[in-house]
Amino acid sequence: MAGNSIGNIFKLTTFGESHGKAIGGVIDGCPAGIELDIEFIQNELAKRKPGQSKITTQRKEDDTVEILSGLFEGVTTGTPIGFVIKNNNQKSTDYSHIEDKFRPSHADYTYESKYGIRDYRGGGRSSARETACRVVGGAVAKQILNHYNVTVNAYVSQVGEIKVLKHYSELDLSTTFSNPVRCPDENLTDMMFNYIDKIRKEGDTIGGIVSCIVSGAPVGLGEPVFDRLEADLAKAMLSINATKGFEIGSGFDGITQKGSEHNDEFFCHPGPVEGLDNKVRTRTNNSGGVQGGISNGEDIFFNVAFKPVATIMQKQRTINKKLEEVEIEGKGRHDPCVLPRAVPIVESMAAIVIVDHLLRNRTVKLIIDN
Amino acid sequence: MAGNSIGNIFKLTTFGESHGKAIGGVIDGCPAGIELDIEFIQNELAKRKPGQSKITTQRKEDDTVEILSGLFEGVTTGTPIGFVIKNNNQKSTDYSHIEDKFRPSHADYTYESKYGIRDYRGGGRSSARETACRVVGGAVAKQILNHYNVTVNAYVSQVGEIKVLKHYSELDLSTTFSNPVRCPDENLTDMMFNYIDKIRKEGDTIGGIVSCIVSGAPVGLGEPVFDRLEADLAKAMLSINATKGFEIGSGFDGITQKGSEHNDEFFCHPGPVEGLDNKVRTRTNNSGGVQGGISNGEDIFFNVAFKPVATIMQKQRTINKKLEEVEIEGKGRHDPCVLPRAVPIVESMAAIVIVDHLLRNRTVKLIIDN
Amino acid sequence: MAGNSIGNIFKLTTFGESHGKAIGGVIDGCPAGIELDIEFIQNELAKRKPGQSKITTQRKEDDTVEILSGLFEGVTTGTPIGFVIKNNNQKSTDYSHIEDKFRPSHADYTYESKYGIRDYRGGGRSSARETACRVVGGAVAKQILNHYNVTVNAYVSQVGEIKVLKHYSELDLSTTFSNPVRCPDENLTDMMFNYIDKIRKEGDTIGGIVSCIVSGAPVGLGEPVFDRLEADLAKAMLSINATKGFEIGSGFDGITQKGSEHNDEFFCHPGPVEGLDNKVRTRTNNSGGVQGGISNGEDIFFNVAFKPVATIMQKQRTINKKLEEVEIEGKGRHDPCVLPRAVPIVESMAAIVIVDHLLRNRTVKLIIDN
Amino acid sequence: MAGNSIGNIFKLTTFGESHGKAIGGVIDGCPAGIELDIEFIQNELAKRKPGQSKITTQRKEDDTVEILSGLFEGVTTGTPIGFVIKNNNQKSTDYSHIEDKFRPSHADYTYESKYGIRDYRGGGRSSARETACRVVGGAVAKQILNHYNVTVNAYVSQVGEIKVLKHYSELDLSTTFSNPVRCPDENLTDMMFNYIDKIRKEGDTIGGIVSCIVSGAPVGLGEPVFDRLEADLAKAMLSINATKGFEIGSGFDGITQKGSEHNDEFFCHPGPVEGLDNKVRTRTNNSGGVQGGISNGEDIFFNVAFKPVATIMQKQRTINKKLEEVEIEGKGRHDPCVLPRAVPIVESMAAIVIVDHLLRNRTVKLIIDN
Repeated sequence: MAGNSIGNIFKLTTFGESHGKAIGGVIDGCPAGIELDIEFIQNELAKRKPGQSKITTQRKEDDTVEILSGLFEGVTTGTPIGFVIKNNNQKSTDYSHIEDKFRPSHADYTYESKYGIRDYRGGGRSSARETACRVVGGAVAKQILNHYNVTVNAYVSQVGEIKVLKHYSELDLSTTFSNPVRCPDENLTDMMFNYIDKIRKEGDTIGGIVSCIVSGAPVGLGEPVFDRLEADLAKAMLSINATKGFEIGSGFDGITQKGSEHNDEFFCHPGPVEGLDNKVRTRTNNSGGVQGGISNGEDIFFNVAFKPVATIMQKQRTINKKLEEVEIEGKGRHDPCVLPRAVPIVESMAAIVIVDHLLRNRTVKLIIDN
Repeated sequence: MAGNSIGNIFKLTTFGESHGKAIGGVIDGCPAGIELDIEFIQNELAKRKPGQSKITTQRKEDDTVEILSGLFEGVTTGTPIGFVIKNNNQKSTDYSHIEDKFRPSHADYTYESKYGIRDYRGGGRSSARETACRVVGGAVAKQILNHYNVTVNAYVSQVGEIKVLKHYSELDLSTTFSNPVRCPDENLTDMMFNYIDKIRKEGDTIGGIVSCIVSGAPVGLGEPVFDRLEADLAKAMLSINATKGFEIGSGFDGITQKGSEHNDEFFCHPGPVEGLDNKVRTRTNNSGGVQGGISNGEDIFFNVAFKPVATIMQKQRTINKKLEEVEIEGKGRHDPCVLPRAVPIVESMAAIVIVDHLLRNRTVKLIIDN
Repeated sequence: MAGNSIGNIFKLTTFGESHGKAIGGVIDGCPAGIELDIEFIQNELAKRKPGQSKITTQRKEDDTVEILSGLFEGVTTGTPIGFVIKNNNQKSTDYSHIEDKFRPSHADYTYESKYGIRDYRGGGRSSARETACRVVGGAVAKQILNHYNVTVNAYVSQVGEIKVLKHYSELDLSTTFSNPVRCPDENLTDMMFNYIDKIRKEGDTIGGIVSCIVSGAPVGLGEPVFDRLEADLAKAMLSINATKGFEIGSGFDGITQKGSEHNDEFFCHPGPVEGLDNKVRTRTNNSGGVQGGISNGEDIFFNVAFKPVATIMQKQRTINKKLEEVEIEGKGRHDPCVLPRAVPIVESMAAIVIVDHLLRNRTVKLIIDN
Repeated sequence: MAGNSIGNIFKLTTFGESHGKAIGGVIDGCPAGIELDIEFIQNELAKRKPGQSKITTQRKEDDTVEILSGLFEGVTTGTPIGFVIKNNNQKSTDYSHIEDKFRPSHADYTYESKYGIRDYRGGGRSSARETACRVVGGAVAKQILNHYNVTVNAYVSQVGEIKVLKHYSELDLSTTFSNPVRCPDENLTDMMFNYIDKIRKEGDTIGGIVSCIVSGAPVGLGEPVFDRLEADLAKAMLSINATKGFEIGSGFDGITQKGSEHNDEFFCHPGPVEGLDNKVRTRTNNSGGVQGGISNGEDIFFNVAFKPVATIMQKQRTINKKLEEVEIEGKGRHDPCVLPRAVPIVESMAAIVIVDHLLRNRTVKLIIDN
């Protein structure tokens, strides 16, 4: 009810504030029998961690995850996986200037109003630092998906006005993390990097789009009506800090198409041996891999819009707790553009949703399995 | 888990297929002590019901709701409100041609795969007929919101390429339901109507956007982290048939703005009497009324993208259950454009989410209330 | 949150008041592909329905269930099963005398306090009439259990001081419903019947115990820690009107045993063919079929204590809404002993819990099922 | 779904195995604004911790809880409270003898069957060590209850055949923790202690009853139908290791009473000033403070039956993983009687349930609170 958990069967609960002792979480409902690769989890965290290049915040955190439970000799036992990531590099004095002021477009005012109290240091619970725990959950989810040959790949497809125009099938998604912008279109990476760096020098920030593709998902994921796969994906994405929009398949562009253009025709894709393993496929994929709320076996792809980061290194007008008008200026270490670090978070949330629905889908048919 | 419920405290569960005996639902968690206006519920259903004009499906349904429980002498008692809407005008023979065929971009194939069985008549559970039950839930939710002076207004802001360019504050939202298109921009309603009618005559369909504004919502709604208000709204909207996208506040347009442009400055809005009832407000509202996942007292506004309806009155290629390539042509009674009838559904889902969070918000502070 | 649902995957939601138009419910999460026997459901309802003999309430209700959804050509489709049972034989005038008075040991006072309003007619929502909906849910659950060869048998094992002393394995549980008391010990049925009838004539009521045995449940049902199988059974049983206690296996008697007496030794029960289908069993079953919260393949057996019905046909002192001391005397049609009619309710709740855990148990291991 | 959480609004999730790095948990939904007394939490843990006297296990654990989040300057902020308790004194070698054997009446066999893998060291997740996390949750819940003047007192009321015959109102419950048995009847404490010590020397174990009284709970807690207060208490109690039964109010003894004896008459208890603060009370309390599933303002009291601990220091026959018959003998450090250490656990679970329902109860009426 307090909203710190996501998932129904595969459930992630997170805790922790930006400048508290530690952040952490519990992954409940992870199936037993999975050999967990801890190094992989750590590598995923490295993709999100601060201080990776000059276009991200300079806060230094190892983000070393410590798994406290749920594993026996490296294998999941079906019991909850508790984990902790220590906060090492807090500079809480950076935040004394906002103890009494509400930063524009931040959560300061709404938290103060809702709870009557807030940990203002580094944004407390509202800090994007919380998303490190999502990456841990996602890294476990991805290892489950490996067993099903499902892959999740996100990348930065737009920064400000600079937009990847190629279809994702024309890109080499394995190159995404080879550059600090996390864009697989090599023609654009430098341009994006330089643009973000210019914005940073201006003390300003900029938004963009992360695109994500889930390939190999089986037919049948998603519960029709309220828990459609796209509904759960939308919720997961809009739960990430700084997101303002979500679209799947044809998305907002699909509204100007006619049904005769937009519909995805089915055809029978022949298997490797004649008459065997024929597969139902669609010629186009405006549906984005989901029909009637349920995956149809095609790629699931969607876009997530991120607004520019609220903390800017410029003077702004705002008010304080006494409702007096005051000036405020960003201090501390912040990202000029959240997009590069958002890529592993989007992947993580997608992986968590897909695994949850994979497990839910095991319960819908009468199976005499005992 | 099977996804037929939405909400945590104020919870709607729906049941029913397009061509079964009835559809219906249960509203659980409605507070006690509310004098329910049944006629209002019926009027809300009338806004959604088929057959209202030549640009909607010609299926004739009274959509008379029968409340079976939860009221005593017209007042809610805190017990669940069960309700039923009979299906009267099924023409199941219209659907025999799709018993074995998978309609493109419909839920036929995914349901068949997921469950191994489907009620093909009228799309069964995947039919938009289910949304009538959401309107009942929404009509109850709206009556709760009345007590808090919260209003929910949606309207059609785009059909194909025809787009309302005015800001919602320039429109008279009380006129939305006075025209069959459900657009409050009188300069565009005829154009939209004629366009949809032309599309209908071509046997084709078209998509568009429904915009929605929630005014008067108190500060503090939404749980940070996973159950942010915008995340729950996104899920609710993407759970509506034919939706492909959601954006709140600046949305997808906000990505090209810089933080210095996008940030919403706080100021103190003076109350009617000097020094009394001063209110924290923002000068702009790119946030869309939500900051850090929590409402800030400004208008909550968002857009929902609808794809063109999948059923078209034209020949299309597809496959049947034997995976043979076949032709299919739409029959039966269908909407050429789902937008006009979607307006009350968007409003209903928004109202349900807001009421749920109003009730959740009662539990976050230490209150000695006993 | 309002507590009208039970189950996680197989979920029953009920609605309805004793003297409203109808009671009913929604069964969500029933697996697809089950040929439902509606007559069986009706027969189960007949076991619970009022007016069966002179030792039960004389209210006459057909208790005809109408299934509104979730079936296609008699087979479950995985969509929610909505159902309604009309109230026909309300005599609401019987209750005008309690409009302003709080009946001792009834829910009148607590409902009035909690909600500020109550439907006093027949007890409204607090009436045991609600349990008819549980029997519908249970009758569906039992049909699922049939596919797993799991049986659920409850019976009256004690009425007042008259107690079945035989172990359940010495009784023919198939005879339970052949007598109005629902006791399979033929030596006691007449004695119990006559005792209840005597109590009835005195205008009084009496309590007792219902015992229940679940046979054939596979190993592995139940989630350790909070959702242990016995914890979920205890909750399900204590959710039935008039229950005051629950014990499983050795129960309250086990507390005086030593561990060396109480422990259930494991042994290997040989299969029909040497070396094949050997089964782990226990020599005794003080555990009641559950160890560490998880079923071990032995019979699950438990007892449920029912207090005497609160409504008696004798004068009692109480207070009214103005807190004035008044006299009250039972009117209307009531059960002198709830036990006989409770038997199908206990079975139903047990079946619902077992099916829910059967489905939950499908998700705990890594299975490459796609 | 995996059952490691309890509560709806005030929700405790626990993780950790007996011999892993640490156990811990997350308390989500704790209201903001509560000054938490950490020392009180530590004192509550001290009541449960092992090694307190010769009649408890000699495992030495400080059970020092480290709160990682959710507090700002000592006050709850409404964000999740993450906590960790390190495991220091594992002696995992003590358990190598059970790696392949199933201990009678333990969870070894059921875990192995359910998950295909188990952490056999110290019972892994099935160890009662997990209950330390419940005590942390309970200690937070109790501090919330303090604000409502609600107290929770449990005590050992029976060990084997030695039973407290006095009504709890005749006992000084403040003395419970002054003796190692946790029994407030000074005439019995030595007898119980000596009896348990004798059992211990025999290498055997014994069961008993913990009684619990919740005083001061307001009228209105509990949701009728499935989430009755007594149903949620029953579940919470049966979720504690080694419990076999639960009874509330008259419990199993009430079944032999007639309604005319059992009913609790209401009367008006005059307030301190004439005509002011009159209170509805009952002359007797066979209901145990709950009517129709909802608290009525009287004391809530219930009993919990605990079986003898399964681990005995005697030879027993059992089987190993290969289903061969083998002998097994308890090693390691174990409790001869779980009762003394169970007292704070019962209190904790009760406090958690009561707080959860206090918060749930805030949402049932129409309140214009904004």
